[in-house]
Amino acid sequence: MSFLEISVTDKPALNNAFLIEGLPGIGNVGKLAVNHLISALNAKKSLEIYSSSLPPQVTIKEGGIVSLINNEFHYYKNSKNKRDIIFLTGEHQGLDHEGQYALCIKILELAKEMGVTEVITLGGYGLGKIVENPRVLGAATSSSMVKKLKKAGVHFSTEQEESSAGIVGASGLLLGLGRLQGLEGGCLMGETSGYMADPKSAREILLILQKLLSLDLDLSDLDEKIEKIGALTKHLTGMTHSDDSEIDISYIE
Amino acid sequence: MSFLEISVTDKPALNNAFLIEGLPGIGNVGKLAVNHLISALNAKKSLEIYSSSLPPQVTIKEGGIVSLINNEFHYYKNSKNKRDIIFLTGEHQGLDHEGQYALCIKILELAKEMGVTEVITLGGYGLGKIVENPRVLGAATSSSMVKKLKKAGVHFSTEQEESSAGIVGASGLLLGLGRLQGLEGGCLMGETSGYMADPKSAREILLILQKLLSLDLDLSDLDEKIEKIGALTKHLTGMTHSDDSEIDISYIE
Amino acid sequence: MSFLEISVTDKPALNNAFLIEGLPGIGNVGKLAVNHLISALNAKKSLEIYSSSLPPQVTIKEGGIVSLINNEFHYYKNSKNKRDIIFLTGEHQGLDHEGQYALCIKILELAKEMGVTEVITLGGYGLGKIVENPRVLGAATSSSMVKKLKKAGVHFSTEQEESSAGIVGASGLLLGLGRLQGLEGGCLMGETSGYMADPKSAREILLILQKLLSLDLDLSDLDEKIEKIGALTKHLTGMTHSDDSEIDISYIE
Amino acid sequence: MSFLEISVTDKPALNNAFLIEGLPGIGNVGKLAVNHLISALNAKKSLEIYSSSLPPQVTIKEGGIVSLINNEFHYYKNSKNKRDIIFLTGEHQGLDHEGQYALCIKILELAKEMGVTEVITLGGYGLGKIVENPRVLGAATSSSMVKKLKKAGVHFSTEQEESSAGIVGASGLLLGLGRLQGLEGGCLMGETSGYMADPKSAREILLILQKLLSLDLDLSDLDEKIEKIGALTKHLTGMTHSDDSEIDISYIE
Repeated sequence: MSFLEISVTDKPALNNAFLIEGLPGIGNVGKLAVNHLISALNAKKSLEIYSSSLPPQVTIKEGGIVSLINNEFHYYKNSKNKRDIIFLTGEHQGLDHEGQYALCIKILELAKEMGVTEVITLGGYGLGKIVENPRVLGAATSSSMVKKLKKAGVHFSTEQEESSAGIVGASGLLLGLGRLQGLEGGCLMGETSGYMADPKSAREILLILQKLLSLDLDLSDLDEKIEKIGALTKHLTGMTHSDDSEIDISYIE
Repeated sequence: MSFLEISVTDKPALNNAFLIEGLPGIGNVGKLAVNHLISALNAKKSLEIYSSSLPPQVTIKEGGIVSLINNEFHYYKNSKNKRDIIFLTGEHQGLDHEGQYALCIKILELAKEMGVTEVITLGGYGLGKIVENPRVLGAATSSSMVKKLKKAGVHFSTEQEESSAGIVGASGLLLGLGRLQGLEGGCLMGETSGYMADPKSAREILLILQKLLSLDLDLSDLDEKIEKIGALTKHLTGMTHSDDSEIDISYIE
Repeated sequence: MSFLEISVTDKPALNNAFLIEGLPGIGNVGKLAVNHLISALNAKKSLEIYSSSLPPQVTIKEGGIVSLINNEFHYYKNSKNKRDIIFLTGEHQGLDHEGQYALCIKILELAKEMGVTEVITLGGYGLGKIVENPRVLGAATSSSMVKKLKKAGVHFSTEQEESSAGIVGASGLLLGLGRLQGLEGGCLMGETSGYMADPKSAREILLILQKLLSLDLDLSDLDEKIEKIGALTKHLTGMTHSDDSEIDISYIE
Repeated sequence: MSFLEISVTDKPALNNAFLIEGLPGIGNVGKLAVNHLISALNAKKSLEIYSSSLPPQVTIKEGGIVSLINNEFHYYKNSKNKRDIIFLTGEHQGLDHEGQYALCIKILELAKEMGVTEVITLGGYGLGKIVENPRVLGAATSSSMVKKLKKAGVHFSTEQEESSAGIVGASGLLLGLGRLQGLEGGCLMGETSGYMADPKSAREILLILQKLLSLDLDLSDLDEKIEKIGALTKHLTGMTHSDDSEIDISYIE
């Protein structure tokens, strides 16, 4: 009964490529970072994944044109350091546990077909309070990957206990399933309040990725978003004692 | 494990037909409009779709006869402008995301078998307040379709942002899935409070459809319902400050 | 992934048999009636249906022995009027819409294999208030069945509108699905408060079934339960203004 | 669409083996008991079960290494009394009824392949109040098993009525499904408040298992946990009247 359809625009063979996941999640940190990368590197659309594990819903794009909710691959041929990149973005994650598994299994299958050997997932680490200088916390599928991430500036907590909640959703599943298939992987989690879209946290992740992937990124676009959010946060903080209304900041995507 | 059964009464080959969807939704606008069209054009029952994606429930019809909840096709052979119409109506939409996809995929498959080339979905656009002169908002699968709808009087907002919630359920899915299959389509959303069945909003949609499909409709039946609801609304508005009880107006179907 | 297992004790060929459903529901009216029939007619165990659509749970029976939750057929060879009966009972209905459909389809398949030609489903009709003289309301798959039920004393409301909620769960689904397969059927709904197990309402249903099936039943067992509940109800009614505690009367099965 | 993968480390043929289940549940009693047994008997990892019926989530283990949530078999070759043991542990039970059935069916299949002939499930029996001297209550698939458990000190209530709630989840399902397949089995339920992890209740279960399986266990590790919890409980009880805050004791696993 399940529906799955792959709509391919361009599916090139890539070189020892990274899959970098940035689906919506806490503080939209992963999505902000990946969307910035797609735009900054001018990555090309590769394919769209449509699935009944996603919401039965269309979004209305510019000019009134509808588009069925999906997950997308965009790719970047990296002449500099010889390792190509696939970016995974989308409007939603799978809607339930079966759907999360089904989508992540398909994503890994497609990624491996295109030459992916390593998976980097991006997300937010919710602190429940506003954080001035967000760190980037990490987790990985192997100790060699942990070492590599540490070297790039990722923080590994010594307090992380076995009983911790772990990483929920695509950012966790792509690593866990990938590991079962012999794929190396790591997760970068930017600290964030969890209360709003957090481009500052996304920026910290991008600084790590620059080192990790030897990229040269223009972050000015993100800096603008950070200023907007900063102004809004100050405004909200000032209002906190007198007003409890929720403010929609979903336009910062 | 899933159950799906099609019970065919009459499945004629139609000419370059429209599929017009009017399943239950916000303000029951789409269902009111389609049921009016079925009755006004004396459309014939074509087939019934039974599915385990619908509620496990029978309705009790006149005389105490039970009927399993379903979705139905009614068709209208249009001698005038040569384009035939299939109307989709029913008591429920699919109960969850998998069920929504499964039903809409089946509906499109059956519609294409019968000669459908274009999909028009109808629904309400909830405003959360009573609206005196409801507009009909639109979305479509292509810019040529947008143009066609605009010409018929459909309003396309320039404020619609990419981040908008979009169209949820069958009205969205039939367009989104149809587009993947090369079917043109558009959605007509009548503005409505969302608080009650809204024949006034349905009437606005019917005025658009008259132009779009070159139909000649008697709307007097709907005008009666509008008067009933109007009287009720006035009554309710007067009561608002003194009484909070909910009033069932579900008999206006 | 779904699990379904039929454990057969005895599966005789029956003669133009009735299937009488009495799964748990409003006021447990159907289950009380069917369990009374099984015991009064000394019906024999035919088969057990185990399914992943039922709760993942065992009950603990006498002596500490566990038993996986199931649905059961018991049969009664009726020498008198030549029409045999299968009784359907169990601890639960299917847990969701897909499960309800899957179980009811399997039940009808098994019933037809054993010679069932007519389906009678039993249930409660919740009124939300205590009712002194509960009527038995009806619904059926055909007007000839309506006539037959009326003759046996079943009440058919003239106020039942098309927009009514209908019959939810196995009592509705067995009729609706049966009708699609050409099986005649009717539903008997005993009026009940819906607040507690209601043997009085079950008794009214049994009086109808006696006529309908030409049975001769000893109802004294049920009369005892009615007295118990009657005493409890008086007690509760007296307490209503001073005490709001809930009292468990689930031991009246 | 479902995902299931077995990752085998070592799958020896065992001798007339027991399967002892200790998945998370009320008071974490079963998991505490089984984890103690695995560690005390130095049981070896046999296999891991990965499934889309489990949460789409990884845990972060020591050193920042991620691990996909799973269920695991550990085995113990018992030279003394000739009967080997498989221990079933994990971070979660199946997430819904279909998932519970799917996982338990797979677990029984694997256990039988490895030589399991008897299933012992462990759990807590929630009382809703702190219990000084928890008893171990039992249920079983046959009266001979009931006798065997009674002899080992398990308490069988004479008040257990047919209408009792029974045993929910893997502890019930492994017995109920096992019984359908001809496997003998019993459930040991340690009385517990249900408010927190309860090593005291787990200790009572271990004392029974020592007799039942002729094991010689060092319980000192558990005694430490009991002291910790005891101190915490006293602290909490003292606080009860002045403070309602919840205290996380999830670190006692």
